[in-house]
Amino acid sequence: MTPRPGGPQAGARGRLGRAVVIGTGLIGTSVALALSEQGVSVWLTDQQPAAARLAADIGAGKVLPEPLAAPEPAPAAPAAGDPSGRGPQEQGGPWADLAILAVPPAAVAPSLAAAQARRLARWYTDVASVKALPLRQAREQGCDLASFVPGHPLSGRERSGPAAARADLFLGRPWVICPGPHNPPEAVAAVLELVRCCRAEPVQAGADEHDRWVALVSHAPHVVAAAMAAQLTDAPGGALGLAGQGLRDVTRIAGSDAGLWTQILAANAAPVARVLADVAADLAAAAEVLATGGDPHPAEHPAMKPLAGLLDAGAAGVARIPGKRGAPARDNAVVQVVIRDQPGELARLFQVAGEAGVNIEDIGIEHSPGLPVGVAELTVRPDSVARLTQALAAAGWPVRR
Amino acid sequence: MTPRPGGPQAGARGRLGRAVVIGTGLIGTSVALALSEQGVSVWLTDQQPAAARLAADIGAGKVLPEPLAAPEPAPAAPAAGDPSGRGPQEQGGPWADLAILAVPPAAVAPSLAAAQARRLARWYTDVASVKALPLRQAREQGCDLASFVPGHPLSGRERSGPAAARADLFLGRPWVICPGPHNPPEAVAAVLELVRCCRAEPVQAGADEHDRWVALVSHAPHVVAAAMAAQLTDAPGGALGLAGQGLRDVTRIAGSDAGLWTQILAANAAPVARVLADVAADLAAAAEVLATGGDPHPAEHPAMKPLAGLLDAGAAGVARIPGKRGAPARDNAVVQVVIRDQPGELARLFQVAGEAGVNIEDIGIEHSPGLPVGVAELTVRPDSVARLTQALAAAGWPVRR
Repeated sequence: MTPRPGGPQAGARGRLGRAVVIGTGLIGTSVALALSEQGVSVWLTDQQPAAARLAADIGAGKVLPEPLAAPEPAPAAPAAGDPSGRGPQEQGGPWADLAILAVPPAAVAPSLAAAQARRLARWYTDVASVKALPLRQAREQGCDLASFVPGHPLSGRERSGPAAARADLFLGRPWVICPGPHNPPEAVAAVLELVRCCRAEPVQAGADEHDRWVALVSHAPHVVAAAMAAQLTDAPGGALGLAGQGLRDVTRIAGSDAGLWTQILAANAAPVARVLADVAADLAAAAEVLATGGDPHPAEHPAMKPLAGLLDAGAAGVARIPGKRGAPARDNAVVQVVIRDQPGELARLFQVAGEAGVNIEDIGIEHSPGLPVGVAELTVRPDSVARLTQALAAAGWPVRR
Repeated sequence: MTPRPGGPQAGARGRLGRAVVIGTGLIGTSVALALSEQGVSVWLTDQQPAAARLAADIGAGKVLPEPLAAPEPAPAAPAAGDPSGRGPQEQGGPWADLAILAVPPAAVAPSLAAAQARRLARWYTDVASVKALPLRQAREQGCDLASFVPGHPLSGRERSGPAAARADLFLGRPWVICPGPHNPPEAVAAVLELVRCCRAEPVQAGADEHDRWVALVSHAPHVVAAAMAAQLTDAPGGALGLAGQGLRDVTRIAGSDAGLWTQILAANAAPVARVLADVAADLAAAAEVLATGGDPHPAEHPAMKPLAGLLDAGAAGVARIPGKRGAPARDNAVVQVVIRDQPGELARLFQVAGEAGVNIEDIGIEHSPGLPVGVAELTVRPDSVARLTQALAAAGWPVRR
């Protein structure tokens, strides 16, 4: 439940010599790239051999000759650095230190069963975005649960496929692991070492707890965005022409793969259903307040109270979301600069900011159709505003806090 | 209904000599700044005299000595450049060419009545985000509707107050005007000239049509974002720690002023209610599908069809939203670059891009808590990807399409 920082301790406790990545989609290939970068010997396999070959081609590891089969005799001993004092694996033991099951939620248990039957690895983890269902199915299929530590890296990408993979996909992002009392410390250490290699932030939680958390902050928001975006399918062109950044932001995540998301939602059905039912009830109540107002209520009318309360609660909820650096985003300040829309214009701006010793935390650019200027919004620490504003103004930039 | 480009024609048809801005909040002050920049003589008034003084202090115009009162004898003739051949105003006519009512929706009609009673201006417009209600109330209060052309600039900002105002707030954004058959061409020309001065894109629509449009693309999405964000008010900290850009985007607009939004929603009640009722029904149906699935349905189960259909419709809806340049955003390509999180780092990156002749359409930066690197996502035209990638790679940047 509490974040556990990665670092040398984790590394010392669970050094990985050889790893197998089962499933070379976006997540699996990115994990493989990160492990390869850290010197781990990575083997790749995928139901679609072409996907594994593509992952190997971009440097993620070597293709396992046949799916889930050990390609060579097992080595004498994986260097697992076991802190419990137990000796190394005996001859004929598992082939790799860790197998990462990077497959859809419903495929985790069968993949785990198949891999364990072949003694493919000493420890196992998965990366599925739900945790209770694969764990239950693994139990039902008779898997060895002691060697399986469920995991879920929150990469926050909407893209998919090995071509979109990158070694830094998980950099600084939370990576939930769900160890149980049946997992030996070495199993947990091996998965923590995986998290460290991917430069993610480990977070420990129970499987059910994890599923409620992601239902609230990821799965339900996805359906809410889709339900709003679905209203646009037959919107008049004039209405769409008035769309601003607000609508784009509210609906953006609804643009991702519907098939994959149907699987995710099906696998976390009950927790997502609870959140969606609450949101639906709040929206239905808001619609009712507005529809039955008759000649429009003044905003101060008592009948409008539930709607005002919902908006207040929404603002309070937004304020609780941590910013990109773990602090509420509102702590940062925004400086606006009018820029010409041409190559090199931003270089000069950032050079001035850099020379003033100001670090830009975030940038947004608003372009204007058909006009040769735009507005750059520079997010900086509040104590940098004066320095940045002065530096930009001195360099001739039209600037506004 | 069709966009009408601003430009010299509009300017020649409705030159503004003197304008009054009634209400110096964010919108009113920004309008005043834009008009002042274009050489229009701008007078400011606000129910709160301090707000008008603040607006004057930042260069938006001069404070009107007493609210809605003409401060000096009417001039001989506002230079209205009337194309109809009618002569200039007779002595004792309206004091200004145009009054802009930048007040909340419910205040438009009473402000219009008071201004017209004093013959403050020849033509009037407003900037309220709903159009049918103020127009109906103005009719009920006996206002002269011939001189009033309702308007709505879509600024797309969540900030408020005169301090956040800027002359370029409306640059390239749509500005809906709702002229009726009772408006003489000069009235429409004066408001088009206002739009041109603010460098916005004029769009003509009926008042009811406008209200349906903004209910769909602005007002309902606001309530949907608030309803999702409201679920976070009692979320466990562990859940919030897993929040990613998706949740931030979906809920962002719910962080703005709840009081102002209650007024906006109350003033556009029926159209917003219809959209919210549809969204609520879709979400309730999705919750029902998920809750009654029992042991989770496989994603391919027929019972999941309605949910998959909603996600498909959502993706289709997102694809219809025009991008920042009027083209769907998916036409652009994203190049990812790993950057060190320190001053001056971005300057070098943009310099390299500029030297390669590549125009950056948009930028996003992902920071990583506690780590000295981040990832910059550069959005560029597809035909610039190869050039940018080569230039960055040649300069030593770790880059990935």
